[in-house]
Amino acid sequence: MAAGAFAAGRATAADGEAPPAARDAFAFRGPHQSGIVTPAQDRLHFAAFDVTTGSRAQLVALLKAWTEAADRMMRGLPAGEIGPVEGSSLLPPDDTGEAIGLPASGLTITFGFGPTLFRDEQGRDRFGLAERQPSALHTLPHFPGDMLDPARSHGDLCVQACADDPQVAVHAIRNLARIGFGTVAVRWSQLGFGRTSTTSTSQSTPRNLFGFKDGTANVKAEEPDALDEHIWVAPEDVSGGAAWLAGGSYLVTRRINMRIETWDRQPLGDQEAFVGRTKGSGAPLSGGEEFTEPDFSMPGSDGPVIAQDAHVRVVHPDFHGGARMLRRGYNFVDGTDSLGGLNAGLFFIAFVRDPDTHFTPIQTAMAKSDAMMEYLKVTGSAVFAVPPGIGDGEYVGQALFEQQ
Amino acid sequence: MAAGAFAAGRATAADGEAPPAARDAFAFRGPHQSGIVTPAQDRLHFAAFDVTTGSRAQLVALLKAWTEAADRMMRGLPAGEIGPVEGSSLLPPDDTGEAIGLPASGLTITFGFGPTLFRDEQGRDRFGLAERQPSALHTLPHFPGDMLDPARSHGDLCVQACADDPQVAVHAIRNLARIGFGTVAVRWSQLGFGRTSTTSTSQSTPRNLFGFKDGTANVKAEEPDALDEHIWVAPEDVSGGAAWLAGGSYLVTRRINMRIETWDRQPLGDQEAFVGRTKGSGAPLSGGEEFTEPDFSMPGSDGPVIAQDAHVRVVHPDFHGGARMLRRGYNFVDGTDSLGGLNAGLFFIAFVRDPDTHFTPIQTAMAKSDAMMEYLKVTGSAVFAVPPGIGDGEYVGQALFEQQ
Repeated sequence: MAAGAFAAGRATAADGEAPPAARDAFAFRGPHQSGIVTPAQDRLHFAAFDVTTGSRAQLVALLKAWTEAADRMMRGLPAGEIGPVEGSSLLPPDDTGEAIGLPASGLTITFGFGPTLFRDEQGRDRFGLAERQPSALHTLPHFPGDMLDPARSHGDLCVQACADDPQVAVHAIRNLARIGFGTVAVRWSQLGFGRTSTTSTSQSTPRNLFGFKDGTANVKAEEPDALDEHIWVAPEDVSGGAAWLAGGSYLVTRRINMRIETWDRQPLGDQEAFVGRTKGSGAPLSGGEEFTEPDFSMPGSDGPVIAQDAHVRVVHPDFHGGARMLRRGYNFVDGTDSLGGLNAGLFFIAFVRDPDTHFTPIQTAMAKSDAMMEYLKVTGSAVFAVPPGIGDGEYVGQALFEQQ
Repeated sequence: MAAGAFAAGRATAADGEAPPAARDAFAFRGPHQSGIVTPAQDRLHFAAFDVTTGSRAQLVALLKAWTEAADRMMRGLPAGEIGPVEGSSLLPPDDTGEAIGLPASGLTITFGFGPTLFRDEQGRDRFGLAERQPSALHTLPHFPGDMLDPARSHGDLCVQACADDPQVAVHAIRNLARIGFGTVAVRWSQLGFGRTSTTSTSQSTPRNLFGFKDGTANVKAEEPDALDEHIWVAPEDVSGGAAWLAGGSYLVTRRINMRIETWDRQPLGDQEAFVGRTKGSGAPLSGGEEFTEPDFSMPGSDGPVIAQDAHVRVVHPDFHGGARMLRRGYNFVDGTDSLGGLNAGLFFIAFVRDPDTHFTPIQTAMAKSDAMMEYLKVTGSAVFAVPPGIGDGEYVGQALFEQQ
């Protein structure tokens, strides 16, 4: 998604302030949804919704309204045509106002459909969509170490809002929830205060709350062949009823609590051995710099320099048929846990072509044999099918609802 | 607190990156603590701690270690002298590393002492400090509408970390908690993603999650007389044992959940009537612009233009003996509540010379008669005495522990 060049800024307060510059606005419409290969923004508000209506028509109406509002907000405009303060004093505004005066701030809004939108837990077809459920769209298996909180897992729909200003990301989710009142309810939501991934070679690699660079080996926007091979759903992946998903992707979220107090008491050398990289530069322990490929066979004083249970080895594409992901995770701190530690960690987000081949095997290996697992506790999990982008006049998910 | 001019930047990664520019560094030492009149930064991490030791010597040692670490981190240096990656691989680092390469980012760290540091709930003197407890330092009374969560209220110590980069604020709290392991435990912590107050005339007024400008009438750094009258504790306020607090202040926190889904369904005119200001410019409903004084006697079609229960009237200094506060609040979103709404609102922070005169009467009036209260639920509350600033070689709270 290249940066768009929109002339319109967000409607401003009624006091005559000039509209903000329309910088950092990305296009909502295109062959793929925004917020995937878009250079990862600094802040996240992610929400999963449950559909509370049984009416397919209401669900479609919501997706149309969400499309319109998302397109507007990504341009830096209010969520609705009237705006936060310009309308009748007798009516609720069609924008909540906390983003008045703020620019688009690189906002992207990305929509996904969960397995339960197609079939409920009893297998019933909720909206006449069961025949169109992609075979790879199913609840992830239980992994060792999962301690999932149902109130932080799953969902019928998801919206990922990323922006450089958290007020803009929160404003987007809040207004979409407002628009959905009576049709959907927020099932869970998650703020991320700092990105832990880079999705473009133009970005530097940030650090997670273990203090290590994260996402070094990510698939990036500048790798079109890798995107086609690992991220975008190909037409041949989704025959028959699921054809609507071609050009889309799958989104996996994992809320990974870090036992940071315990981690902080580990020697530096042990931390680096768990990760398989140096803490400073992020270079593999086999040498070089951050982007040097690890040499897993290099001998050390006691086995290989990069241990058998080092994170970088356990999840490396060399041991998973070359499978790679596009990660878009964020650091989070959600107050305090019951033991007087910070409730903190990594809200993992990955986009993959097929969770069964590109996520589950890697996660299984990690859960079984990654040294880092001793310091992790997975408290939330979800998977969504991310429909492809849309053209003018279309709404998000139109192909799902209207394909012949 | 003027911006300092420190030459040293945070130690960087071992890969030879240049140190970041030492911009936006504030001085930790001075007549008052930083983080009060410092121009309000964009992001907050606030933590309350319980002291888990009975040893006064351990508590003093912690305050010395916190002083050293806070001074370093505000300069953009690692929390400890060795740093995150430069030490022995056999020892845990003395900095956790997630802020490697990040500048000071305007970080301020502000410390406070809660009532329970002086006397426990049974009134027992915990650390030989009971005689030095200021008379105004006591748990706030119960207010109508309070639905306090004990796990989000009170505390023996508090640390307010504000910065323009949330990773820097989180890093500060996390490292202070790490240093305090065995002496203190985090009782609760709160992230704020967006400031809702301005503490300097150089700043524009931001918006809270009701979509309104907040903090227009704040006491600001450029009002030295008002600071002396309303914010700083004067020597005559604290005779005898409490003399250590002269030049300090009191910090009141209130975690105010907003019923934003209900608010969003109110007509614009009603929202403005509740607040007593326009949503666009923030001008009082009696006219003018944001900083025009409200005219509470101006007649409207049905009573005064600014209603009797309008927020701006109920809390206005004119009706509280001229009492003003220095507010430093932040918007928060902490996921979802059990009803499918966003767990969101305002984490209110105010600094006042005396909570009994400058907070409790105003909060009482608000709780009893403010139209806005219908949309608020207070879920956390705390009060702390904020000692004055310190000079070279001193530690935070030294006057409390060592005054004769």
